[in-house]
Amino acid sequence: MVNPLFECESSGLLTDLYQLTMAYGYWKTGKADQEAIFNLFFRKNPFSGNYVIASGLRFIIDYITTFSFTEYYGDYQTEYGLDYLKSLNLFDKEFLEYLKLLTLSVSIDAVPEGTFVFPNEPILRVRGPLLQCQLIETALLNIINFNSLIATKASRICSVADGKPVLEFGLRRAQGIDGALSASRAAYIGGCAATSNVSAGRLFEIPVKGTHAHSWVMSFTNELEAFRAYAKAMPNNCIFLVDTYDVRTGVMNAISVANELLKPNGYDLIGIRLDSGDMAKDSLMAKDMLLKAGFENTAIVASNDLDEYKISEICKGKHAIDAFGVGTNLITAKDDPALGGVYKLAALSNGTNFENKIKHAFNKTTLPGLLQVTRSIFQNSAVGDTIHFGHSTVEYSDLGKPLLHPVIENGLLTRTLESTIVAKYRTDKGKRMFSNLMDINNSVTYPVNIDKKVLDEQAMLVKKIERNLQL
Amino acid sequence: MVNPLFECESSGLLTDLYQLTMAYGYWKTGKADQEAIFNLFFRKNPFSGNYVIASGLRFIIDYITTFSFTEYYGDYQTEYGLDYLKSLNLFDKEFLEYLKLLTLSVSIDAVPEGTFVFPNEPILRVRGPLLQCQLIETALLNIINFNSLIATKASRICSVADGKPVLEFGLRRAQGIDGALSASRAAYIGGCAATSNVSAGRLFEIPVKGTHAHSWVMSFTNELEAFRAYAKAMPNNCIFLVDTYDVRTGVMNAISVANELLKPNGYDLIGIRLDSGDMAKDSLMAKDMLLKAGFENTAIVASNDLDEYKISEICKGKHAIDAFGVGTNLITAKDDPALGGVYKLAALSNGTNFENKIKHAFNKTTLPGLLQVTRSIFQNSAVGDTIHFGHSTVEYSDLGKPLLHPVIENGLLTRTLESTIVAKYRTDKGKRMFSNLMDINNSVTYPVNIDKKVLDEQAMLVKKIERNLQL
Repeated sequence: MVNPLFECESSGLLTDLYQLTMAYGYWKTGKADQEAIFNLFFRKNPFSGNYVIASGLRFIIDYITTFSFTEYYGDYQTEYGLDYLKSLNLFDKEFLEYLKLLTLSVSIDAVPEGTFVFPNEPILRVRGPLLQCQLIETALLNIINFNSLIATKASRICSVADGKPVLEFGLRRAQGIDGALSASRAAYIGGCAATSNVSAGRLFEIPVKGTHAHSWVMSFTNELEAFRAYAKAMPNNCIFLVDTYDVRTGVMNAISVANELLKPNGYDLIGIRLDSGDMAKDSLMAKDMLLKAGFENTAIVASNDLDEYKISEICKGKHAIDAFGVGTNLITAKDDPALGGVYKLAALSNGTNFENKIKHAFNKTTLPGLLQVTRSIFQNSAVGDTIHFGHSTVEYSDLGKPLLHPVIENGLLTRTLESTIVAKYRTDKGKRMFSNLMDINNSVTYPVNIDKKVLDEQAMLVKKIERNLQL
Repeated sequence: MVNPLFECESSGLLTDLYQLTMAYGYWKTGKADQEAIFNLFFRKNPFSGNYVIASGLRFIIDYITTFSFTEYYGDYQTEYGLDYLKSLNLFDKEFLEYLKLLTLSVSIDAVPEGTFVFPNEPILRVRGPLLQCQLIETALLNIINFNSLIATKASRICSVADGKPVLEFGLRRAQGIDGALSASRAAYIGGCAATSNVSAGRLFEIPVKGTHAHSWVMSFTNELEAFRAYAKAMPNNCIFLVDTYDVRTGVMNAISVANELLKPNGYDLIGIRLDSGDMAKDSLMAKDMLLKAGFENTAIVASNDLDEYKISEICKGKHAIDAFGVGTNLITAKDDPALGGVYKLAALSNGTNFENKIKHAFNKTTLPGLLQVTRSIFQNSAVGDTIHFGHSTVEYSDLGKPLLHPVIENGLLTRTLESTIVAKYRTDKGKRMFSNLMDINNSVTYPVNIDKKVLDEQAMLVKKIERNLQL
């Protein structure tokens, strides 16, 4: 257990209260099982950027397939969650009994993790009883919004690093424990090569990296002794942090310890790390010193408040940095820390067939109906998407490749869980397919076409709403 | 369980890899049990503000008192965490055995949650074996940084709301599940009156609020029917969202449903909610309509991308808003989403007594030694703090009130757990004690004095380091 406080908490309670009061209302008015369709999408790319990389589906699968209002404590089923709901004096006993027995029967179609997506495109589409669709909204948004945000931020940072590996070091500044764990995974999907977060490494099979901090150096009489002690303890993992006191002295000490304790025993000085100051300049000085001492393979790692703009600046000039460590700015997506994904009712069954629905107010009008997104690819480049009516079961149409795939049918997972690396590969492929969008300083709008049938239906529904208002 | 993926994860692994490689180094070099003192502090107030409200201690207590490298799955103890560490090929078998048997024996002194704190003041002080102090660094920083950030942000938002309640609605845009849960609690400590997050409500005894969303209205033929259905289902919890289509029509419909279904049955129209547009203007129109219809007690709730600046703007002008709902900007601390707390070695025992330590580089020099902070209070106002050498056991000195109190001794909790409301009351008291710092548009530096003995010791250590570098 990562956070004992959250142990044995029923997932059904991980929602906004209004989802439960609405659920109660649907149940009371006989609408609980009315079949509904909801689309999850965002309206604007984050970071004033050109795209979003979808991420988080794995956690949604976990959430949906274990959803419950009761909890298991070992083998013992408890009802703390339901007792709590009872204490609110909002719901009657029969409804709480209904929640107790509720198992989700929703079906979810989603774009796979690591897919490039764009404003207004459904990333995820839920079909199922209205009450259930509503209860799961908040968790779905929380998961997709945050994970996609971090995958996108990571891809931006990696895109400017001249192919050098970017390491995610954000745990200490992340927004909560899960704000770190799921972000480490999303950052890996977005392009990072490794994380410092050991739990994330274990849970999601991400390479972990790390050697020592300033406190290691400070706990010895001097830096030379500190490096010696480290080299004796872990000769196979020597990346010395050289800036505790002074970079030049630090590099000198690293070299002399490498000559004294690593080389004679068949080990190499894997790297040195800079964590402050003018890192481009210092990296050149360090490289020079290392080369003169015969350490050609020693990597220089830089980490200090980096983001895509600072790395881009460094990479435009002279430097000898071989890897970048990024913390706060990545793990919190500091310059734009929330993706504004929304989840909107798109259709509702009247018993015999679906009636399409839109939200229409203040120039924000949603798209109605059961939507699919089809991507046109020409010579390995994506040339445009079309949002149209359609089922996810269509594998390929004349238009191109459909993005939404069935993931959960009637509450059950219908495909094997993807390992994280598959999502990472998908992102890599996407970066080539969308190479024209990857320049962080160049604003490009990828063409997303909305099919005429969808627009006509939307216009018809707008008219209907406006007519209703005039009455 | 909120997030099944994180189930049965050993808390020992919730750390940066370098803490483990350093721990291994300390263990190998016989320094594991060398007594150390670390101070946790931040260097700069977030939001260009005047203070920070300390928060998160409760989670630190949970973390420390359950810390382990093994996991329990029900009653069954597993060693997945240790198996994972073994797979990294960095640590030898004896060290993993050592971790398996490790129970923390650190002692922690901390400022209580809800305490106002300032740059360079230790919020938390850890004393214990060097290896243990190092292993817990990352989690301690993660927890204190995020929780304090959100408590501070919430206090800023509440401070401009003219005493009107602020409701936290952020779950869907939060950075992960725990990024929402712990933030809901911190926001409550910082001043929020309630949350929409049901899990947070249950776990931390925070009032929960919520009624219905636009999707409720859209799922009915028209708004009037939707309000009627809601009023029938939950007549005791009617706050109608009136802007799904048009605010004036929405208020009219709310009033007519209240007259038709609430009043005759002894219920009141508790409120209406505005979620878009010019909410100050719309609130005045709505208030006028409500008063004319005889609904004097109906509250007007506004929620739409609010933060302290927008609420301040609204409150400076004419409006009739009775409560503010705040989401994204609060739950992610959007304009400054990470507090830069650090954790620095301050002293190390040489076997007989402590030698003070500093980190000194690039004009960032830490304070050495076992520190205490004492707050001078004059006529219920805080007039200045002093950072000085001292134990937390001193309850009151001539200077004033000591801020750091013992919380954990030798790994065991030494005081009863505070309920969240106590921390909230402490914040309230602090807001009065620091009333001169509460204006978000007025930059005031609260005086934090560093005792001469501390400064002299620091100067001496700086000289020593610089002398060492010249050799």
